[in-house]
Amino acid sequence: MSSNPLHLLMNPKSIAVAGASNNPMKMGTLQALSIIKDGYQGKFYPLHPREREVLGHRAYASVFDLPEAPDLALFIVPARQVVPLLEDFGKIGTRRAVIISAGFRETGPEGRQLEEELKETARRYGIRFLGPNCMGMLNTRISLNVTVMAYRVPPGKLGIASQSGTYITQTLPYLRERGIRLSKAISVGNEADIDIVDALEYLGEDEDTRAISLYIEGIKDPRRFIESARRITPHKPVLAQYVGGTEAGARAGRSHTGAMAGPDYLYEGLFKQAGVIRVSSVEELYAFGWALATQPPLRGRRIAVITNSGGPGTAMSHTLDAGGLEVPPFSPGLQEQIRAHIPPHAASSNPVDLTFHMETEILSETIPELIMKSGEVDGVVLHGAMGHGFMRAVFPHIQEMMGGMELEQFLESIQQPDLARSVELPRRYNLPLIVSSFLGRSDNYNLAYQEHDIPVLDSPEKAARAMVALLRHKEIRERERDDLPPLPAVSPRAAELINRFLEQGRLTLDEYSSKQVLAAYGIPVPREQLAETEAEAVEAAKAIGFPVVLKGCSPEIIHKTERNLVHLGLQDSAAVSAAFHRIQEAAGSPIPVLVAETVSGRRELMAGALRHPGFGPCVLLGLGGIFTEALRDNTFRLAPLRFSEALEMCRDLRGRGILEAVRGMPRVDTGRLAVILQILGQVMLLHPQIAEIDLNPILISGSRPVAVDALLVLESRGREEEKGG
Amino acid sequence: MSSNPLHLLMNPKSIAVAGASNNPMKMGTLQALSIIKDGYQGKFYPLHPREREVLGHRAYASVFDLPEAPDLALFIVPARQVVPLLEDFGKIGTRRAVIISAGFRETGPEGRQLEEELKETARRYGIRFLGPNCMGMLNTRISLNVTVMAYRVPPGKLGIASQSGTYITQTLPYLRERGIRLSKAISVGNEADIDIVDALEYLGEDEDTRAISLYIEGIKDPRRFIESARRITPHKPVLAQYVGGTEAGARAGRSHTGAMAGPDYLYEGLFKQAGVIRVSSVEELYAFGWALATQPPLRGRRIAVITNSGGPGTAMSHTLDAGGLEVPPFSPGLQEQIRAHIPPHAASSNPVDLTFHMETEILSETIPELIMKSGEVDGVVLHGAMGHGFMRAVFPHIQEMMGGMELEQFLESIQQPDLARSVELPRRYNLPLIVSSFLGRSDNYNLAYQEHDIPVLDSPEKAARAMVALLRHKEIRERERDDLPPLPAVSPRAAELINRFLEQGRLTLDEYSSKQVLAAYGIPVPREQLAETEAEAVEAAKAIGFPVVLKGCSPEIIHKTERNLVHLGLQDSAAVSAAFHRIQEAAGSPIPVLVAETVSGRRELMAGALRHPGFGPCVLLGLGGIFTEALRDNTFRLAPLRFSEALEMCRDLRGRGILEAVRGMPRVDTGRLAVILQILGQVMLLHPQIAEIDLNPILISGSRPVAVDALLVLESRGREEEKGG
Repeated sequence: MSSNPLHLLMNPKSIAVAGASNNPMKMGTLQALSIIKDGYQGKFYPLHPREREVLGHRAYASVFDLPEAPDLALFIVPARQVVPLLEDFGKIGTRRAVIISAGFRETGPEGRQLEEELKETARRYGIRFLGPNCMGMLNTRISLNVTVMAYRVPPGKLGIASQSGTYITQTLPYLRERGIRLSKAISVGNEADIDIVDALEYLGEDEDTRAISLYIEGIKDPRRFIESARRITPHKPVLAQYVGGTEAGARAGRSHTGAMAGPDYLYEGLFKQAGVIRVSSVEELYAFGWALATQPPLRGRRIAVITNSGGPGTAMSHTLDAGGLEVPPFSPGLQEQIRAHIPPHAASSNPVDLTFHMETEILSETIPELIMKSGEVDGVVLHGAMGHGFMRAVFPHIQEMMGGMELEQFLESIQQPDLARSVELPRRYNLPLIVSSFLGRSDNYNLAYQEHDIPVLDSPEKAARAMVALLRHKEIRERERDDLPPLPAVSPRAAELINRFLEQGRLTLDEYSSKQVLAAYGIPVPREQLAETEAEAVEAAKAIGFPVVLKGCSPEIIHKTERNLVHLGLQDSAAVSAAFHRIQEAAGSPIPVLVAETVSGRRELMAGALRHPGFGPCVLLGLGGIFTEALRDNTFRLAPLRFSEALEMCRDLRGRGILEAVRGMPRVDTGRLAVILQILGQVMLLHPQIAEIDLNPILISGSRPVAVDALLVLESRGREEEKGG
Repeated sequence: MSSNPLHLLMNPKSIAVAGASNNPMKMGTLQALSIIKDGYQGKFYPLHPREREVLGHRAYASVFDLPEAPDLALFIVPARQVVPLLEDFGKIGTRRAVIISAGFRETGPEGRQLEEELKETARRYGIRFLGPNCMGMLNTRISLNVTVMAYRVPPGKLGIASQSGTYITQTLPYLRERGIRLSKAISVGNEADIDIVDALEYLGEDEDTRAISLYIEGIKDPRRFIESARRITPHKPVLAQYVGGTEAGARAGRSHTGAMAGPDYLYEGLFKQAGVIRVSSVEELYAFGWALATQPPLRGRRIAVITNSGGPGTAMSHTLDAGGLEVPPFSPGLQEQIRAHIPPHAASSNPVDLTFHMETEILSETIPELIMKSGEVDGVVLHGAMGHGFMRAVFPHIQEMMGGMELEQFLESIQQPDLARSVELPRRYNLPLIVSSFLGRSDNYNLAYQEHDIPVLDSPEKAARAMVALLRHKEIRERERDDLPPLPAVSPRAAELINRFLEQGRLTLDEYSSKQVLAAYGIPVPREQLAETEAEAVEAAKAIGFPVVLKGCSPEIIHKTERNLVHLGLQDSAAVSAAFHRIQEAAGSPIPVLVAETVSGRRELMAGALRHPGFGPCVLLGLGGIFTEALRDNTFRLAPLRFSEALEMCRDLRGRGILEAVRGMPRVDTGRLAVILQILGQVMLLHPQIAEIDLNPILISGSRPVAVDALLVLESRGREEEKGG
């Protein structure tokens, strides 16, 4: 068993509760009732200063009166009572706590101080805890409900960890209404100790949990998140919603849990690195998580659409197709088999559309089984299987004709379909099945599906998009799993250059020096020399070979092209001389000139690296040149980078098409491009003094990327946090 | 009253039904029961060959036995019986029909023939009809339900027209469950007569309908759709889902209603022209339609977020921000007013987060009213107002402590909040309010909101996105409403050139001729001349002025640059001579050479026009040059184009940033660009022989677009459908 603190916390044999009373309208009481009433078999010890009995259990006035050190202490008391109480629990030997109490970091400086005291006290006693400012947890395997809401449903396979307690409390009725069952749920609150990554790791190890959904407002240690998730995601799907990446989202999150959010593009990149499927709503977190937790993995892209109605069939086909899945026409043989069971003019190809049809077992069993057996598809989406739902919808009109029978009586009078075979199909054929229905749990088919771990979603598009989520996980499962390359040694030449600028108090390296630093680590740059005089320039040009490029070289100058400091295609010494003088003229005062070989290429990319508080160095790749700002077609990752991660960045670009063989130009050597990205990350890790690197443009010369311009910016001081890196 | 055939069809004073019987499990019977049982006050005449009475109403063996010509005839009989029956109705003077019967165009050649007979018969008698293969209609104002499902709810304000009958039948329980009420619903089926545009126009005129949702698999007459929608959308929001634009969606749609789908990009463009808000699921069609139908128009971008929970508050803020709305911090004064009502550490800025809080009227009334009154926002999203929903969720645990009281008794014992003021807020302050709740209709707050036309959506993100839909309609409301410019006269020079090529049986015009045609209508091209000999080339260059460009000019040659047929920057006669010879060499056999002025610019766009079956001429604009294929950053519209529509195309590009002042280059004159797009559409309309026009690249020279290359392709024969245009 791993050392994850949640193992014991989620599986306590005994729980003490501070804050419960006999007043049923108090949060503490509701929380205690959930423990007592929802099936938990362990011991329960309420603490109460005055009452002798709370909720029918003997109450204890002090922690020291308890008959044993409980495995878990639960706090729903005012913030200022938490620390002394925790100390008491520490003294008797309790080592896990759930602190529901709010009033800590999220409230300002005083609360922050209180949270520090809490952490310090816990540390002293080796207590690991959830919260403060959390909403508890659920472990359905042992029927342990530590939330304010009543919740007693059979265990499910979806585990959830959330930085908002709402998503394991307010949503419990929502989940029950939709038939979504959980394995475990964890509200991490302020994460003063146990954090979302601990929860992720715990759910990753938990055998009851087959997929993990995370609600995230900010991750404290993104690198640890990536590495933990990478271990889990190849075999267990992880979904995440991140809402801290907009200005409004970040501000809201700050006042909620005090979490430090980061820009959306960094989270987008880190989720990709982590193999985490990003979703955009809590609904998707639950719905897609449900599908991923219950269905066999998708092994290919071919999906069958089975329906009793053209609209949903068309909408599902469209949504599957738009999501990267295929709805292939069935073979003539399979279509013939299908046609034996459907009305003469009904569509048999794919979608199969039975049109409105009362023999639901054809739709729910016969056709799906024929299709699954055929081997022609990798998954099935189904809309229209229904029984009671339809009967309920027409009953008000036929009640009179049925002799005034009551609805329930009428429903009982309808022969119950035998759905045993229908609901076994996914397991029998090891193919995912996702159901769409507008009828929810008012329909007996839907109830049967849900009971047998087949998700029923309330719109055709949602069912199709859940299947697309399965495709995302297929792609993640099949990714290459390479290791992080070792960091190279620090280049003395690079270190020396950087230090020289730092000693001079200059924070921007000129183009020549920037490229020297980068070239020292293997980033391809043009052959070039720095010239202070016309004669030096001509000599350099001869050494490099005509045609050459001349550029004014000063760290203070950006947008050189627009300032007439760049001269291209200089064919001879005279042209070099002329250009040298024109540059001096344009600059106004004497500046060194960079003489460089001509690198030609019509494709311009950009790459770079920067540091963002809380993220360490990040690497970016984008379209370059004049499109840099206009298209903002960028992708980010956290350094260091695996080779496969760097390659994936190339595939991320919307304009990735220009990396292909286009318009007579060869395919870009993306391997070399990936190596440049890896090196950028390494340089940032090796030199914490570098704040930012900017390669723009990277020209594609033939198939090879060459950084024809580069800029390196230093930190005013190397940051402490980075110096260890 | 307009001549729309649906006015009478939706408001009949008498209905005859063919296909109803006394067997309650027949579709025809269910349909008849819906008419009889859901409150319709008009006359009802069942036809039946044998029964004397059907569903308690006197039955008629023949149409000719009817006591009057009913306003509406409803058919749920086998397909082959429809035409003769319709003929009978025609003879007695019935002029409207709803044909539920399937087995027509959607089933193949025989069905297509039957549908033609149906149309012909209807035409003969002046009968206008819905269907065949439709699922009926609803008019809630007169409690007329012509569907198979029981549905009797108070009238709503959302009208829907659908090419899938499911969305007005199978979804009725879904809508009831969510509290979404309709004004009118129309299933158009195969659209043999009345089509989706008729339905749109009818709903546009209908005073009960405040927003319109359309489910679309294919539009027969896109130009009519655009012009109808443009009349409606400035004052009444129209939403549409289109699912025919993917390969799988188009195939599915074909087998469903036989509709001819079109590429997604054409629909994307025509919805924009029409001012129609495109959505991607039926859920959005209902949910956003509900919000648009019930809420006052959004007048600005500032939205308040009010919540009892950080997660939903953060998620709503993020989603609003990502959708183009603002969540501005409140003024200190307003925050002070808010703080008087919320717990000490709760957030007062925006979002207002009360944290878990039992005094719901603070959340549902006090805070929203303070905010609405302040004038600091243009709309409010609210999550967490609840009463019974929460009580239900905790009741199982407290039941015993409540002396074993029953749930309903318990709920009654709770003081009913007075929600009168809360639900009046949107009208009182004329500001939209959208509510998010996980509790659905199990909560009394939600019931009250819904009853008073305030939408309650089941996730925070959905509530925020509904508000974004209101923003979309604000943008549409505020668009310029300019007229279509008159078509210019045909240019004799252009007509002559086109005819010359056609007479020679050549379907591709060379670059020079292509530009001549386009220049005749005012499209800016470089000054250029065609030269057959070296001497002519040199002379032309002198006339035009150095530097010049030389290009091999032959309609057979594309990708001239890659084939060394283009020489740029020729500074003198010698260079022109040399280039002339190099072009002849590269071409292999003598070809004319185009001598052109040098147009320089780093920004490359492309524009063009083409015809797509069913759409007439379409105009496109995109990024050009090497990015044409790599980025596929294109936008399409149907010709002819208003100036404002052409301008909007410029704003559509993802890379629209390059049209701004960037990197020392001036802002592109988008007015001139828009005029080019208008002209392209006009040229296609004036010359039906042109199949395709391709301007790539359009270089931006300074701020002005110039078509430096052009290609014009002719039809093998001018299409009949276009010759009238």
